[in-house]
Amino acid sequence: MTLVPEVAPTRVERRKARTRAALVEAAQQIYAETGGSDVSIQQITERADVGFGSFYNHFASKTELFDVAVAEILEEHAAWLTELTAQEQDPAAVFATSMRLTGRLVRTRPLMAQVLMNSRFSLLGAGAGHAPHALADITRAAEAGRFTVDDPVLALACTAGCLLAAMSLGSLDGADLDAVVDGATGNVLRMFGVAEDEVRALTALPLPSEDVQAGRA
Amino acid sequence: MTLVPEVAPTRVERRKARTRAALVEAAQQIYAETGGSDVSIQQITERADVGFGSFYNHFASKTELFDVAVAEILEEHAAWLTELTAQEQDPAAVFATSMRLTGRLVRTRPLMAQVLMNSRFSLLGAGAGHAPHALADITRAAEAGRFTVDDPVLALACTAGCLLAAMSLGSLDGADLDAVVDGATGNVLRMFGVAEDEVRALTALPLPSEDVQAGRA
Repeated sequence: MTLVPEVAPTRVERRKARTRAALVEAAQQIYAETGGSDVSIQQITERADVGFGSFYNHFASKTELFDVAVAEILEEHAAWLTELTAQEQDPAAVFATSMRLTGRLVRTRPLMAQVLMNSRFSLLGAGAGHAPHALADITRAAEAGRFTVDDPVLALACTAGCLLAAMSLGSLDGADLDAVVDGATGNVLRMFGVAEDEVRALTALPLPSEDVQAGRA
Repeated sequence: MTLVPEVAPTRVERRKARTRAALVEAAQQIYAETGGSDVSIQQITERADVGFGSFYNHFASKTELFDVAVAEILEEHAAWLTELTAQEQDPAAVFATSMRLTGRLVRTRPLMAQVLMNSRFSLLGAGAGHAPHALADITRAAEAGRFTVDDPVLALACTAGCLLAAMSLGSLDGADLDAVVDGATGNVLRMFGVAEDEVRALTALPLPSEDVQAGRA
C-alpha cells in the first residue's frame, strides 16, 4: 500500500478555492435576500468581487452554482446540529433540541435562516440538505418508542411546516422568537403523541449559549 | 329617508369593471407562476390584454394591484369554504373539512393553490385573507372543548405550515395528494389533543364531489 503524502495546496489552488468560496457566498446572499436566482452571472461575479471569466472555471451554469450554494449551507447546518446534540442519548431530545436551535437561527445566523425559509419545501422530496438528518431523528425516536409516527416522511414535512411558520411568525416585529419556536416544537411533539409533561420537559432543555449558537465561541 | 334606486351599470362602468378584473386576473396568474411581482406594468397590461394607460385608472401602483389580487383570491377561498361547511355544526369538523378541501385545491383549483402556496406565511401576521376565518374555526373548536389549544395564533401558524407542506409534498410526481393532505390534517388534530378515533372519523368525513370542489357544479 502506498501512502499518498499530504501536499500543501499551491498558491494557484488556494486562489481557486477562494474564488469558488466567494461565488458560493455571493449566491447564498442573493438567495437569502430574494429567494431566487434571477440575477445575471455578471451581477454574481461583481457581488463576489471576482472576474467575470472565472465563473465558468468553477460552475457550468447559474443553476449549478445556486444548487451548490443552498446544499452547502444546509449541509453546514446539519453538521452543526449533529455536533451540538452529540452528547444527547434520548432521540426525542435530539429532535426537540434540533428544532429549537434551527428556529433560533433567525437571530443567531440570519443568512442561514433566510436560506432555509426561502428553500421552503423544495428539499422535502429531494432527500437533500438537512431533510435526511431530520428524518433519521424522527425514525430513531419512533423506533425507541418515544414518538408515535405513522408516516415519517409526512411527519418530517409537518415538522418543516411548523418550523418555517414559527420562524416567519417569530420574525415579526415585537414577536418573542424563542417562545414561538419552543411553542411550535411542543406542537410537533404533541403531534407525535408525546405526553404533556414530556412536552414541557423536552422544550425546556438547556441550549448552548447564544455565542455557541451563533458560532462566535 | 330617501331610497337610492338600483341603477344598472352603464356601458362605461361595465367596461371599467372588465378592465379591472382582467388586471387582477393577470396579476393572480403572474403571482401563481412566479410567486412575485417582479414584472413591468407593460407586461401586466399585455397579459391582461388592456391598454397600458388604463392601469392607473384602477391602481396607484403595481404593489397595490398585487396586494388586491392576492387578497381577493384568498377572500374568495374563505367564502367558498364557509359556504361548503355551512351545514356542519361541529366546529372540529368544520376545521378538518376546511383543511382537507384547501389541500385538494392543488388538483381542483391549481391557480388558487399556487397563490396560497406562494403567499407562504406572509398573511399570518396581517390578519388578512383566509387567516381570520381559520383562526375563528380553531377558537370555536377550542371553546367547544373539541381542541386543546394554548396559543391560537401559533396553532394557526402550525396549521398553515402543515397544510403548505402537505400541498408541496402532495404535488410531487407520484404522490397521493388526498392521502397526504388527510394525513397532515390528522397530524394537526393530534396536535390539538384530539383522540385517535376522533382523528380517524374527522379525516374520513364525506366531502363535496370533485365537480363542486372545482366549482364546475
